[in-house]
Amino acid sequence: MNKNRLEAFSDGVLAIIITIMVLEIKVPHGTEWKALQPLLPVFLSYVLSFLYLGIYWNNHHHMLHSTNRVNGYVLWANLHLLFWLSLIPFTTGWMGENSFAPAATALYGIVLLFCSIAYWTLEQTIIRKNGKDSLLAKAIGYDLKGKISPLLYLTGIALSFWSSLAANGVYVFVALMWLIPDKRIERVYELQEKGN
Amino acid sequence: MNKNRLEAFSDGVLAIIITIMVLEIKVPHGTEWKALQPLLPVFLSYVLSFLYLGIYWNNHHHMLHSTNRVNGYVLWANLHLLFWLSLIPFTTGWMGENSFAPAATALYGIVLLFCSIAYWTLEQTIIRKNGKDSLLAKAIGYDLKGKISPLLYLTGIALSFWSSLAANGVYVFVALMWLIPDKRIERVYELQEKGN
Amino acid sequence: MNKNRLEAFSDGVLAIIITIMVLEIKVPHGTEWKALQPLLPVFLSYVLSFLYLGIYWNNHHHMLHSTNRVNGYVLWANLHLLFWLSLIPFTTGWMGENSFAPAATALYGIVLLFCSIAYWTLEQTIIRKNGKDSLLAKAIGYDLKGKISPLLYLTGIALSFWSSLAANGVYVFVALMWLIPDKRIERVYELQEKGN
Amino acid sequence: MNKNRLEAFSDGVLAIIITIMVLEIKVPHGTEWKALQPLLPVFLSYVLSFLYLGIYWNNHHHMLHSTNRVNGYVLWANLHLLFWLSLIPFTTGWMGENSFAPAATALYGIVLLFCSIAYWTLEQTIIRKNGKDSLLAKAIGYDLKGKISPLLYLTGIALSFWSSLAANGVYVFVALMWLIPDKRIERVYELQEKGN
Repeated sequence: MNKNRLEAFSDGVLAIIITIMVLEIKVPHGTEWKALQPLLPVFLSYVLSFLYLGIYWNNHHHMLHSTNRVNGYVLWANLHLLFWLSLIPFTTGWMGENSFAPAATALYGIVLLFCSIAYWTLEQTIIRKNGKDSLLAKAIGYDLKGKISPLLYLTGIALSFWSSLAANGVYVFVALMWLIPDKRIERVYELQEKGN
Repeated sequence: MNKNRLEAFSDGVLAIIITIMVLEIKVPHGTEWKALQPLLPVFLSYVLSFLYLGIYWNNHHHMLHSTNRVNGYVLWANLHLLFWLSLIPFTTGWMGENSFAPAATALYGIVLLFCSIAYWTLEQTIIRKNGKDSLLAKAIGYDLKGKISPLLYLTGIALSFWSSLAANGVYVFVALMWLIPDKRIERVYELQEKGN
Repeated sequence: MNKNRLEAFSDGVLAIIITIMVLEIKVPHGTEWKALQPLLPVFLSYVLSFLYLGIYWNNHHHMLHSTNRVNGYVLWANLHLLFWLSLIPFTTGWMGENSFAPAATALYGIVLLFCSIAYWTLEQTIIRKNGKDSLLAKAIGYDLKGKISPLLYLTGIALSFWSSLAANGVYVFVALMWLIPDKRIERVYELQEKGN
Repeated sequence: MNKNRLEAFSDGVLAIIITIMVLEIKVPHGTEWKALQPLLPVFLSYVLSFLYLGIYWNNHHHMLHSTNRVNGYVLWANLHLLFWLSLIPFTTGWMGENSFAPAATALYGIVLLFCSIAYWTLEQTIIRKNGKDSLLAKAIGYDLKGKISPLLYLTGIALSFWSSLAANGVYVFVALMWLIPDKRIERVYELQEKGN
């Protein structure tokens, strides 16, 4: 039951974050198509952030699905993750409204970096509670993606002062990398079905 | 359980989208009744969008009710639908504040078109996972409404450059078409009750 | 299950409506206590609307608790209620920012009137589905409060052109009338416990 | 079931409050790092309020976890708590945008004080319903933290006119005091496990 309410609260916060971002796409005053033109970078950064929040929701969902026990540390590690994710609408807005300016692009990457660190911390906190032989621990295994992502964000942040296009290319690449269905997760379900 | 969290997250996002739209009806500065007059188109477009989001929530509810299994593809097809639905407050705001100007009316229809395509994609993804003999597949059958709607939206989009009133008439017509209780859904429940 | 998702969606929408209203209390620019003074009518109208939405949530909760079956008509009657409730943040904002001006006070009452009609419609739709011998039908009985409330709102609307203080007094009276614990509801629980 | 919907609604409201606060961190117009500088107090007050709402969610979660029965008084005591919590985004915004000005810092503490009183009222209302021998009553015991917190808030409010730094120091101290894992709660779970 504990776990269910953790899921419900996280779903609520993620649903609001993902939807609040759309408020940054301010309704333009003009009535012509060209009034939409300055909104293009705002829209593109919205799409990217929607993708990221979708990935986080998806992975969070799978992670908790293969979790049995939660404790106070898990609750706080989860709130810590939600804190960093809650900053995404702000960085998305700043990056979009300034057409991917260097500082805004770097800040976007910095928040993504902290999100990935917070996600990793949550994962480790859950594994510590559930044991190294737990389904989650087995399913995650070596976690290559989880280890590469922070390095790629760092690369993106560094690149943003040279070319914000290149930096955003890196952010898009990380998102696509996570979009590819994860064999680890399927392994979890297989293990679970065998167990039952 | 998987499915329950998908429903919960979708409900959350839909609830927020439907309620955020009301923020577009900006509180007027005047204290007289006539201060409300410029809000009439904003209000009318709010009513239309509320109706559409209500229909989507209703149909989404029924679709998942007759679904047994979900997988990663279903989760993403669902997020894809939520993405297009999340743009409705923006297009509603633009259309309302510009008193149904042609471009705004066309964009409103374009987003509705993508919503209907995304809904159809989600439906097909669920059927692919649950099999052609599944309850959902049988219940949907030929899906006339689902096939006509995109064509009607296209008609509306084309009409908006000639008469935005006519275009909005088409959008209202599609909404009313979906409001009529669906015999297919009742068939699902009957099939289910027989099955149990 | 059907009913659970109806509850979850309604809770989501009500939670958002109740919280979005606080956004109307705009952060003032001054740093002194007197900067808060113009916010007093905004705050008072927030308290009143919070109370009303709390009452609606509470009664909605009890009504669905004693409901067994829902159908398409119930879903739409529920969305109809949520539509009118979703206009409360707007009318609250208009009334608050204009220090209870006559037109704003009247509009506030008009929306409350439609909310009460929509609630009554939902109640009747649920009773029609569950039968006149259902727990809900028995528990509601003659429903004096539900019948008096619309009349009181009408009185408030009429009064607002003469004295907005008197009108708001009526709105406060109706709220307090509903705050008093309802014997009918307790009767439902007693009936239920006997039944089980 | 009653209790579940109370939890779900509270989670919804808390999730929205926590996320709406981020809207107070307005996207700056500059594209340089220094454009972020005026946002520092806004960000710091966001962190503090996020922490407080996280603590309230956590404690609320634990309190209801060890609750069996709820009634109308509990529902209203809960709404009363949500009311005061809903004012936190406003006080956070005022304090942040005015760089911790005395009046804003005092108001921030005043709302925290009312939140703590409302929490205590909810706790007592639940205990009255569930009995003095209930799990919750035993687990809470003397409740030193709950009794010290209001006194500390009062100290903070008084200090804010002399030094808003000192006042905020007190608010941070109370937050950290609550962050330390609560032995009482662990005791509840132990008692529960023995009971089952």
